Amino acid sequence: MGSHAGVVLLKVDQVVESRHFEPSTPVDLIARKAIARAVSDIGAMGGSPLVALCACVLPARYGYADQLFDAVSRWAMHFGCPLVGGDISTLVLPGPLVLSISIVGRPHAVRGAVLRSTARPGDGVYVTGRLGNCVASGRHLSFEPRTREGAWLCDTLGDRLHGMMDLSDGLGRDAGRLALASGVGLELDAADIPRHDDCATWQQAVGEGEDYELVFTAAGDVPATCASTGIAITRVGRVVSGAGVVAMAGGATIDISSMGWDHTL
Amino acid sequence: MGSHAGVVLLKVDQVVESRHFEPSTPVDLIARKAIARAVSDIGAMGGSPLVALCACVLPARYGYADQLFDAVSRWAMHFGCPLVGGDISTLVLPGPLVLSISIVGRPHAVRGAVLRSTARPGDGVYVTGRLGNCVASGRHLSFEPRTREGAWLCDTLGDRLHGMMDLSDGLGRDAGRLALASGVGLELDAADIPRHDDCATWQQAVGEGEDYELVFTAAGDVPATCASTGIAITRVGRVVSGAGVVAMAGGATIDISSMGWDHTL
Repeated sequence: MGSHAGVVLLKVDQVVESRHFEPSTPVDLIARKAIARAVSDIGAMGGSPLVALCACVLPARYGYADQLFDAVSRWAMHFGCPLVGGDISTLVLPGPLVLSISIVGRPHAVRGAVLRSTARPGDGVYVTGRLGNCVASGRHLSFEPRTREGAWLCDTLGDRLHGMMDLSDGLGRDAGRLALASGVGLELDAADIPRHDDCATWQQAVGEGEDYELVFTAAGDVPATCASTGIAITRVGRVVSGAGVVAMAGGATIDISSMGWDHTL
Repeated sequence: MGSHAGVVLLKVDQVVESRHFEPSTPVDLIARKAIARAVSDIGAMGGSPLVALCACVLPARYGYADQLFDAVSRWAMHFGCPLVGGDISTLVLPGPLVLSISIVGRPHAVRGAVLRSTARPGDGVYVTGRLGNCVASGRHLSFEPRTREGAWLCDTLGDRLHGMMDLSDGLGRDAGRLALASGVGLELDAADIPRHDDCATWQQAVGEGEDYELVFTAAGDVPATCASTGIAITRVGRVVSGAGVVAMAGGATIDISSMGWDHTL
């Protein structure tokens, strides 16, 4: 153990019917997404999930409560954070199913928690896996949280791993948050952004969200593959002095820091 | 520090519009209740709250978001657990305001976490404060979580303090849970149950819930007042071998273990 013993990571995240899943989404996939989203954020700090809590709002006369709780419990165990508590409320008036998941995790024992506020000018900017079209393709329900990749980056890069977060709202907007938190600018090369085969354009890849891949910044060389999982790691740009996020596409420089999901809508 | 260093207490609880508060309830009191309910449960383990997370579902075009978050943050600080994270979702379809609060606490350093599963036959059964009519009176929005009383009971009774929980769903039903978890029975003396002045009957005092007082069981003598806060402590019965909760009222013995709020309704 390093000097990070006793530090815990905390994350709360929620999924809401008609926002994060459809009324027709199978209960098992609702539960999976709820747990995986919160786990993804722990992984994006380089940490490991330990335990989970679930608060649930059920629509009136909801018929799948037992299946839902069984699935939440099973997925929590699957992702390494057994469910240790929860709360259930049943709606009186019409309203959506809501699952709120809180996770307690532990940071990487040597590197400690990796924050989004510690990117430095001169770093490269990298993403894991591929981006884009994750809602229409259904990948937003079946993604693998990048906990093993986050831990491996801590193992491998140590203090050269500077800033990291996961991509839930789109690379444009999320990178904008990382830039703002770190007091830096990011320049991305649009052609280098790795896209899923069913994602047609780089604008779609940065603008839709629900990718749940990692974006991170690091100094020095970074391997092109996560050795522990085989997931690709792609350099997509660089950290510069300044502010905001731009994509270099052809000869143009395009502000992409507002491309992605806006929670205030 | 005793042998309980490194143990954390976790609690998630939620308040839902039209269930735990009315659409007309002031934002400040919604926030207060949300935090206080979760803090109450940490106090009922004899613990101290450390930090809070808030996940919020906002109705579409909700006009009081800033005031709500300010109030949640302020009450979290007031009750000793600063808000360190959260998540916000906005509803697409009609639905209620929901606040889900997760709290990390620490157990009493010497006594450790007091559970509901460790009541023993021969214990006395006690409650703090007074019960009943807490919804109609508005006390469900303004109660003081019994964290100081919980800690004082740990200080004062130590290992003689056996089982404890807070009263959110009514003494009948909550005592039933304590009895079930501990594998014991409880006999309460209806005339001894302390009632608020505006609570007319013992049945109302045990059957409505939202009291947020402590019920606990202990061996040996228990002071009649919490010396650190002046809150009354009243012996209301005894733990026996067996199962269930009965109230002795006049010459009758009445099963009260289903009197209170049923979450499955």
